[in-house]
Amino acid sequence: MKIELTPIGIIHSPFRNPAGSPIQPSGAKGVKGSIEIFEEYRAGLRDLEGFSHIYLLYHFHPSTGYNLSVVPFMDTRPRGLFATRAPKRPNPIGLSIVRLDKVEDGRLYIQNVDVLDGTPLLDIKPFAPQFDAQQEVRAGWLEQITSNVAEAKSDERFK
Amino acid sequence: MKIELTPIGIIHSPFRNPAGSPIQPSGAKGVKGSIEIFEEYRAGLRDLEGFSHIYLLYHFHPSTGYNLSVVPFMDTRPRGLFATRAPKRPNPIGLSIVRLDKVEDGRLYIQNVDVLDGTPLLDIKPFAPQFDAQQEVRAGWLEQITSNVAEAKSDERFK
Repeated sequence: MKIELTPIGIIHSPFRNPAGSPIQPSGAKGVKGSIEIFEEYRAGLRDLEGFSHIYLLYHFHPSTGYNLSVVPFMDTRPRGLFATRAPKRPNPIGLSIVRLDKVEDGRLYIQNVDVLDGTPLLDIKPFAPQFDAQQEVRAGWLEQITSNVAEAKSDERFK
Repeated sequence: MKIELTPIGIIHSPFRNPAGSPIQPSGAKGVKGSIEIFEEYRAGLRDLEGFSHIYLLYHFHPSTGYNLSVVPFMDTRPRGLFATRAPKRPNPIGLSIVRLDKVEDGRLYIQNVDVLDGTPLLDIKPFAPQFDAQQEVRAGWLEQITSNVAEAKSDERFK
């Protein structure tokens, strides 16, 4: 069984290269970008501006292949792929929560952008605390990591 | 440009029909389910058990077609599709945060399951507060909704 997807827009950001990019939106605070939504989907943007934060689902487009064991950016030990956010995955779909500043003429103006310029957008979902906030969270290997995600940068390892 | 995806597993839940199912994991507190990960991907599950919560990305498999304007389950007014979590979307990818109880023999035992039995799983990502918690959130039309998401149930509207 195969599932076929088509981009609904293109994400623009200051990042042209994986190396040196922030590894998560929390490492890209204040980084501005925009999303061009293709004309045929723009009617679906109504009411979106009321949300301060949105999920972006996108295609990790430079990614090909994957390893089920990876050394994450903030770690020195190999971890199971699904316990990481590494971009090379069996289904290379990225997930980021960004701040939404404005919607104008089919363009979304966003902040905290951690994705590469030219990334194909697949879906937008509103972020809502009543759905998405969680209590009593344990964050596995990430809890033992002392390096600061706000300062961690991508390198060439998932190229 | 087309993107092709392949399921990495199958989600099992008590919900055989869209009508009557919870509309979000927050409406499915304590509902237990499991996920069978296909053999070839199981090595990627290492270290996952350390996380109490995980994102599931899955295919809204009964969904065909979409409308860019929908009346959400908890509302009476039409809203732009991308300002909702409605299942019929240009790219019908679902996103749920569930509680992870245990990983055993390639099977994930989960709670707060709001998806239909037999749903094809596309990806798993660890939920980590340092990436995913957000401050100063505005939740648009959802903030005006008085009905309780914990009690709201799906109906036939997106069948």
